[in-house]
Amino acid sequence: MQFTITKELLYNLRERIAEGKDSAILQVIADAHPADIAELINELRDNEAVYLFRLLGSEIRAEVLPELDEDVQDNLLESLTSREIAEDLIENFESDDAADLLSGLSEQKQEEVISLLEDEEQASDIIDLMTYEEGTAGALMGKEIVAVNQNWSVAQAIREMRKQAEDLDNVYTIYVVDDKDVLLGTLSMKSLIFASTSMRTLIRDLFKKESVRTVDVHTPTEEVSNIMEKYNLVALPVVNESRTLLGRITIDDVVDVMKEEADKDYQLASGISEDVESSDNVWTLTRARLPWILIGMGGGLLSAQIIGVFDITEHPEMALFMPLIAATGGNVGVQSAALVVKALANQSAFDESLPRKLAKEFSVGLLNGTICSSIILLVSFLSPMHLSLGITASVALFSVILFAGFMGTWIPITLDRFGIDPALATGPFITTTNDIVGLIIYFSVGHWVMQSFV
Amino acid sequence: MQFTITKELLYNLRERIAEGKDSAILQVIADAHPADIAELINELRDNEAVYLFRLLGSEIRAEVLPELDEDVQDNLLESLTSREIAEDLIENFESDDAADLLSGLSEQKQEEVISLLEDEEQASDIIDLMTYEEGTAGALMGKEIVAVNQNWSVAQAIREMRKQAEDLDNVYTIYVVDDKDVLLGTLSMKSLIFASTSMRTLIRDLFKKESVRTVDVHTPTEEVSNIMEKYNLVALPVVNESRTLLGRITIDDVVDVMKEEADKDYQLASGISEDVESSDNVWTLTRARLPWILIGMGGGLLSAQIIGVFDITEHPEMALFMPLIAATGGNVGVQSAALVVKALANQSAFDESLPRKLAKEFSVGLLNGTICSSIILLVSFLSPMHLSLGITASVALFSVILFAGFMGTWIPITLDRFGIDPALATGPFITTTNDIVGLIIYFSVGHWVMQSFV
Repeated sequence: MQFTITKELLYNLRERIAEGKDSAILQVIADAHPADIAELINELRDNEAVYLFRLLGSEIRAEVLPELDEDVQDNLLESLTSREIAEDLIENFESDDAADLLSGLSEQKQEEVISLLEDEEQASDIIDLMTYEEGTAGALMGKEIVAVNQNWSVAQAIREMRKQAEDLDNVYTIYVVDDKDVLLGTLSMKSLIFASTSMRTLIRDLFKKESVRTVDVHTPTEEVSNIMEKYNLVALPVVNESRTLLGRITIDDVVDVMKEEADKDYQLASGISEDVESSDNVWTLTRARLPWILIGMGGGLLSAQIIGVFDITEHPEMALFMPLIAATGGNVGVQSAALVVKALANQSAFDESLPRKLAKEFSVGLLNGTICSSIILLVSFLSPMHLSLGITASVALFSVILFAGFMGTWIPITLDRFGIDPALATGPFITTTNDIVGLIIYFSVGHWVMQSFV
Repeated sequence: MQFTITKELLYNLRERIAEGKDSAILQVIADAHPADIAELINELRDNEAVYLFRLLGSEIRAEVLPELDEDVQDNLLESLTSREIAEDLIENFESDDAADLLSGLSEQKQEEVISLLEDEEQASDIIDLMTYEEGTAGALMGKEIVAVNQNWSVAQAIREMRKQAEDLDNVYTIYVVDDKDVLLGTLSMKSLIFASTSMRTLIRDLFKKESVRTVDVHTPTEEVSNIMEKYNLVALPVVNESRTLLGRITIDDVVDVMKEEADKDYQLASGISEDVESSDNVWTLTRARLPWILIGMGGGLLSAQIIGVFDITEHPEMALFMPLIAATGGNVGVQSAALVVKALANQSAFDESLPRKLAKEFSVGLLNGTICSSIILLVSFLSPMHLSLGITASVALFSVILFAGFMGTWIPITLDRFGIDPALATGPFITTTNDIVGLIIYFSVGHWVMQSFV
């Protein structure tokens, strides 16, 4: 039977926690995977979460904690002593999870926890991992590698690997190194099982000497995930400048990074500033949405100023095409920005230079602009409106399409150059900018056309 | 040395292809991974691509083809005879790639290719895989499983596995089945290597009897990727109703699906209708962008009608806040729709019902609306504008925020119920709708306020 999470089960669990029926609680989650328990704990109130967490065995705790939402994790950690964190959690953690957990604690607590770790090698691994900057391969990698020396015999290698792999769920690849831990190649479990070689064969005579794909500790995580995706890798070794093997990144960590990246870009494009879900509470949701609404409103107020300056009361018919100009400018800008953001994320070697990108965007704009402004001109001929208004709308629309495409391409690339996330330029930011500039273009063209026609 | 793709290398390759220097061409790509060769071929002209592809050995061809862009694949396949497709490609493919490739061919060519396959088991595997609907676990899975019978000895199991794993790059998990191929549990490579058991031990005494997480052939791919992500799986077995093992899905296939899903949602939210990249040509880019621009323009023309009906010439000052109303309606609608689309994709068991979602959206709207409309009221007091206009803008803004949130929540959920991709409701579609409805609300409020004040 596969364990399935339902609302009833959650309700049930809550009741039993309220009653303090410990064995009944444990019975409810008896068949649950740690990831399921984490999903349940995420839904509990703070004190319920602490109660349930304390009931779990320390091995399960260590598997549940890394899967929890960050705020729930922080709440649980606050309820634990340094000794509990060290002995119940960290000692059962893989090194990358341990480093992540520790980074969230205060410096004092970090030191306390580390001093309480019994395994000195683990402690130094964790300290080492914590030195790498977030967003790099070093911060993402784990130290748990199965590595064998090329001079070992198969028998010796199997003996050593048994120790190394003791705490690992999955062994993806066996790395072959020299005496200085320099990575030489890989050995598959398959070849060890199926090669039917003698136990005395040396590893050097068995392993694939082809060049192994590696990344440097400083490689950005986005590049790591591009490489693993492109070459269909489940594990990627991390090395330093002299190709000494330092750790490995596994596909499950990269899947999480990919998911977060995609969610973040999508949220920014939609004008949501924090990592929220529709199940969060009203206040959190409002806080994540209000800033972008206010930016849009600021733009709206500025637009009102512009409309006032151009004196709409003299040519009130100009109001007719304001929505059309604003909407089209917004749409074109968002499209251009999205294409640029996607291209920046994929970093292909064949990516065009900024001038070429702008030139292409200009061509696309010419095409779209010609089609759209012709339609408007046609509509204005067929309707009883002043020809001057039709010409104004048509010329302004053409210019706005060209301009919005330019802004949508140029802004994210410039942000990226200054080390700012280009995805910021998608969504409300670009629509607001194009709304305002679009209106200025529209009224300027109108001013000029009306003068020429009267 | 790791092979790196550069523009110079591509240029070099093109020159040599033009000169027909075959050995020089092969030298350029000597150290390239099939995924690198695919990336290069994607950049070549049609006839250059065919030339290079024909130069490759059939094993490399089989690894390159599945990595190519779809249009390039189609072009190459057209240049190959049925015999070449069968013998050079399909016979070296894994079953899921083979089924994907065949689905792209005409029915007649499919039959021809299948009749030319020498391996009958492979042929029937492929035919079987082609029967599953796209977007289900069945269509995503491969038939290449390493499975052992529980009644075999370790020696017999290793013998059989050697045959099964011959063509596989990675062996993730060994599945244990009974005489009817019903999945009983798993066996790790680790336990086979490290258990140091006798070769005569029976598999039934070795394997983990715990329940294995499986999916049904009809499970949607989105659910498959959620499961693999949640439980950190690198492979997931696919079974039928009687738990007979039919195939397995590997993480690399799921990573591709996840990436496509995320890209698609992002593109729809940005108003781009096809899967395009900024490096595509001007015409492709225009075609992908024009439909959404036209939808926005249609909305703009409809807005012009509405403005005309409400007779802006009588109250031209109403034009001042039109951009503000439209922008805010658009932003709120996009935010709500994005949250709903994300929640639908993650399908948590704790997801709220539609009425509860709408009620929460209403609360968020009340908060945002109160803050925003108060700001407008304050601004209008401090500026020399008519009080009636300030009140109109303030009341309309409040209503528009509530309404836009409602539409942004309701539309994607309704689309989803009718089996339509809810992501369609993000981006230009929702902004256009809210632009129009926002204007109607604004002018209706204006009409009513002006009447009451005069």
